[in-house]
Formats: sequence, C-alpha cells, structure tokens
Amino acid sequence: MKPGVRAQAGYTLRAQAARRKLNQNECPHDLPPDLKQAVLDRAASAPWQRYPEFVPARLMERLAAHYGWAPDGVVVGNGSNELIQATLAVVLAQGETVVAPSPTFSLYRLLTGVLGGRYVPVPLGAGFEFDVDRIVETTVRERARVVVLNSPNNPTGSALPDGAVERIVAETGALVLCDEAYQDFGGPSAIPLLRRSSRVVVLRTFSKAMGMAGLRFGLALAHPEVARELAKGKLPYNVNLVTLAAAEVALDHAALFAARTREVVETRDRFLPRLARIPGIEVAPTAANFVLIRCRARPASEVFHRLYDEHGILVRDVSTSADLSECLRISIGTEDDMEAVLAALQEILATDSEAR
Amino acid sequence: MKPGVRAQAGYTLRAQAARRKLNQNECPHDLPPDLKQAVLDRAASAPWQRYPEFVPARLMERLAAHYGWAPDGVVVGNGSNELIQATLAVVLAQGETVVAPSPTFSLYRLLTGVLGGRYVPVPLGAGFEFDVDRIVETTVRERARVVVLNSPNNPTGSALPDGAVERIVAETGALVLCDEAYQDFGGPSAIPLLRRSSRVVVLRTFSKAMGMAGLRFGLALAHPEVARELAKGKLPYNVNLVTLAAAEVALDHAALFAARTREVVETRDRFLPRLARIPGIEVAPTAANFVLIRCRARPASEVFHRLYDEHGILVRDVSTSADLSECLRISIGTEDDMEAVLAALQEILATDSEAR
Repeated sequence: MKPGVRAQAGYTLRAQAARRKLNQNECPHDLPPDLKQAVLDRAASAPWQRYPEFVPARLMERLAAHYGWAPDGVVVGNGSNELIQATLAVVLAQGETVVAPSPTFSLYRLLTGVLGGRYVPVPLGAGFEFDVDRIVETTVRERARVVVLNSPNNPTGSALPDGAVERIVAETGALVLCDEAYQDFGGPSAIPLLRRSSRVVVLRTFSKAMGMAGLRFGLALAHPEVARELAKGKLPYNVNLVTLAAAEVALDHAALFAARTREVVETRDRFLPRLARIPGIEVAPTAANFVLIRCRARPASEVFHRLYDEHGILVRDVSTSADLSECLRISIGTEDDMEAVLAALQEILATDSEAR
Repeated sequence: MKPGVRAQAGYTLRAQAARRKLNQNECPHDLPPDLKQAVLDRAASAPWQRYPEFVPARLMERLAAHYGWAPDGVVVGNGSNELIQATLAVVLAQGETVVAPSPTFSLYRLLTGVLGGRYVPVPLGAGFEFDVDRIVETTVRERARVVVLNSPNNPTGSALPDGAVERIVAETGALVLCDEAYQDFGGPSAIPLLRRSSRVVVLRTFSKAMGMAGLRFGLALAHPEVARELAKGKLPYNVNLVTLAAAEVALDHAALFAARTREVVETRDRFLPRLARIPGIEVAPTAANFVLIRCRARPASEVFHRLYDEHGILVRDVSTSADLSECLRISIGTEDDMEAVLAALQEILATDSEAR
C-alpha cells in the first residue's frame, strides 16, 4: 500500500435507524410510486445480462438540455463522487496540489491522498464564508493544479459570492472543480462560465434535489475536450441500467423535483429564524438543504445523543472535526420534521437551563 | 490534464444491435422473470431518496460464504472494474510498475496510465499460454508493485496453470491481482491462496456467469487488513440499492447460475472441436465463455463484417491489436447461436474458397 493511503482515515458513517433521518441531506420524500413504477417497468423490460449503454447518448442530450450545456460536454457517473475521483485522477499528478476551503466535504481530501496529491485547506471565515482572496492567494502561491469549491458548502451551507469562480479562474492557472451538489437549493451556479473557460468543471448530482441518493447518479459538465479526458478517469459501464432509466424518468418529471426543492427551501427559510431564536445555539447562514449549528450551552455530543435517544431525531455530529467544535449539521426535512427539531432543541436546552 | 492521460486512448466500444450478440462475453439468458420481479419488488419497497447501505454487512457475509472467505475480507464494487481501479489506486505510486500478460483486458493498461504508473506487458506464448517464468523474471527485474493476472484471460481464453499464482507470490514481492471474471467457466482459482498470503487479491464479478452485467456488481476478496485499505480506493455508496438487492437475490439462486454456467461450458465444449475443423481458422484453447480464433484464409475484418451483415452475428474484432492480428473473439451463446456461428463461418470461408 502507498504510505499516503495507509495514513488516510477511510470515509465512514455509522448507520443508524431513526424516525427522523436528518443526517445525510437527503430529500425528505421518496419518489412517487408511479415514477418508481415507470423506472421499474423500464428495468423489467431491459436485458439484465447485457452491459448497459456504453455512451448513453439520449440521456446525455437530455441532461445537456436540462442544464443548458452541450451533450458532448456531459460525463455521467455513479454518483457525482465518481466524477470527483475521475477529475482528480486525470488532472493531478503525484505531489501536485489541491486547494479547497476548510471545512468541506471530506472526500476531496481522501481522494487527493489516495492519488498521492498534496491537499492544502484554506479556512473559511469566522462566519463560515468563503475567503476568496485567500483561495486565490493560496492557489497562486502553491501553484495548485486544482481548486475544489463545494457551493453551497457541505457541511457549513455557505455559498460562494457572485463572481467568485470567475475571479479564481481569471487569477489562477488551476482547474476549478465546482461541486454543485446542493446548488438547486441556493447560491450561484458556475454553469454559465463553461462557455468561457475550459478550466471549469461543474458537478451535479441526482442524490439531493432529485431525490435519488439510493440509485447513484451524478454528472460532470465541462468543455467537450476536457469531458473527453475526464471520461478516461471514470470506468466503462459505470452507470447501471436501472439508474440510466431512473435518470430519464426524473428528467421527465423535472417540474416535480423543482416543486419539491422549493418546498424544502421554504421549510428551511421558515425554520432558520425560529432556530436562531433558541438560546444556547448559533446558526450559520445556509443556502443548502441543511444547516450547521454551534452548541454554546451544552456539548454538541450531548445534544446529538439526546436528539436521537429522546426524540428519534438523527442529525450529523461533525464536532469531532477541529474546525467544527461543538457543531451539528441538521438536514432540512419536512415541515413536521423541523417542528420536531425545534421542539426537541428547546426542550434539551431548557431542561439544561433549569438543571443549572 | 496529466500528459500520461492525454496519451491514453479511452476505453471505447461501438454499440451495435444484433440478432446474435456474441461480442461482450455476456450470459446468453436474461434473469428469469420471477427473479427480476423479486429484485424489483425489493427495490420498490426501498426508499430511493436515501443513500444505500454504507457497509452492506449481510450481503458481505453471504458473499463470504459463497466464495469461502471471511466477511471482513470482502469489498463490494460497482462491477469488478471499480475494484481493479481501487486496488491500483491504493497500491501504485507514480512511476511504479504493473506487470501483466499481453494481450489481456485493456483496462489494466488504461488505469495504470491514468494513475501515472508504468505498464510492462509480458507476451503470452505462441499458443497464448501464460509464460509464468517470464512473468516472474520480469516482475523481479522491474521491481513491479503489482502483477495483474486475468485467468481465464480476456481475450485469449488462456487459464493459468495450477500453482502459478502461488509461485509468483513466492518468487516476487508484488501484489498479485487475480481478476477471475471468467473463472466460473474454467481454470484454477486463487481463492484458496488468500489464507496463505496477504499479497493476493481476487476479483469476481456478477457480470458473466451470474448474468447481471447490466446491474454492475463485483467484489474483491483479500486479507481483511488489505481489504480495509482497498476500501479507501473505492467510493462511498458505490453500489446502488437495486444492485445490492439483485446480488442478494442472485445468491439465493446460486444453483440456477451454476446450472447455466455448466450449460455454457457444455455448449463451448461441443462447439470448439467443430469450430476447429473449419478450414482457414485457428482456434485458441479456452477455459472461458468465449473463444479466440485466428482467420488464416480471409482478413479478420472481412469475416467480422460478413458475420454481422449477412448473418446478424456480432462478435468482437480484436484484430487491430498488434499481437492479435487476424483474430476475432466469439462469446459462447446458446447452442442455437453456436450452430449459427458454425454455419456462417463455413459459408463465409467456403464461398471464399470457391471464389478463388
């Protein structure tokens, strides 16, 4: 094994059943039964013993139309995770540098390590805002090959300011990998920049706003010449036949997912000010379908466990990360879920005040 | 892009519809409808908006029992391709060497190139047999980190002799990656060696004998400590919920797939001697569900096109590869498919003799 691999902690998540599952930023609703049935009917009529389409041309055209880009600039993946991996694999030589804000999605660091790259984190600001000056400065100084920007950023919810990607492209020589897994919920998209720079790659996923995390589908959008090289980093036949069918069915019903996304955004926007009024926690601004809170009155691990044990609410305890001490990440679920979270946090923090 | 990536040709395959599809070594039969329905019923009742299981513990236990190995020595993948990639990614540092017989499955070279490794091919013998002496010698001389052995070997059908893997492990310091995609059809397995060496990794797939190429499922078997490192090279949530369900259903019906495999082997063993009697072609010995032929009387590309255009039979033209000049690879389909192949080849080659 490469020493850099041994030194990496693997990506892990303890699976826990919960009445209210708000730990993975999933869509609160399953696909409607008729849509599932449409996918399963297509799957039933396909020959399972045959490899899936090598190049799913029709789907690529529809994705291009949906996102406003060119079909030959689309690469499909087994979740957008595969396209993070593919991009880093084809761009990053051993010892070369990746710059990314910190904290962010942990897979960037893990995959950089596996590939023998150097990972240089740039801290977010005090309110978890992107520090664009420092990203530019660090990228230039470190001669970084890749800048990874997750906007809105997991786990903080921070969105890049308008024009930030454009500036980073203009002022550095790096490839800018824009992971827009949560962009449906807020913040600017870098898709319009694809026309102007071949150093921008945009990743999208069907796991969040499109509600299909269980089926694994993501895509990269890039200049066609770049897309051709990225495709060498992904595996042939990487997307199975059921998922290819599901992606098409989802695009047939894009309006449904847009309505669901609006519902989540509205739920979030009603939830946040009420959350912020609970004493003993601080709430980070968010453009995503989740929110990061800092527990000031009680240890985050205690709040996490009481939410789960006493209220059946599973959130993500991110407080073990040095730059997220006392923080929990809460996905936006249904209106009812968020009422339950508010009531539970009020109780946990009030009980605590009485106990003092 | 890394120069090594630009220099690589991508993995490509032109998709062609055919009455008799004998170009991808697929199972000739689809899953029986009741098995498909069992998978689809499980899929219908699962929540699609949720991520699949992080560690599919029950499936790993069943796979371990099926292959005779330990559950914590199993890593599941989106096809075994992902586990080729994961193994090379965690083991191979830039500039380090991979040794593999030649010709073999082209993905090994492609992925080595993407990772910045050196790929050193060791020619098969004149009858496409593995040259174990030379593999050992080359591995030692080149201080190779990894030896990749595909046995039976795609596209030649050659199987390693008994004891070969054991010898390569004993006489070299390399990790020996045994891709056993076709081992259900013949030749020895390296699985028994897993108990004796942590430098053996065995890959299996459900795409061939298990008839599920369209769903993408494969696995690696390795020493548990090695498996833990390999898992860092694969993606989290790499296997979607439908495929996880399908793998379980397939294991429930292992006897069916074993019977189908015997049927393919019997069809092959009846087909081969008759094929060998056709004048103008040479037949390579095969332990797999495909056979490589060398066209002596007519150009392979002509035979390929006439099989397709005049007989609706699609085989794989591998003759563009330097070491496979005039060769075609023919998958073993149904008895009826193979009768059609024999009749077509007889006609193509007879017409030809008359024309002379």
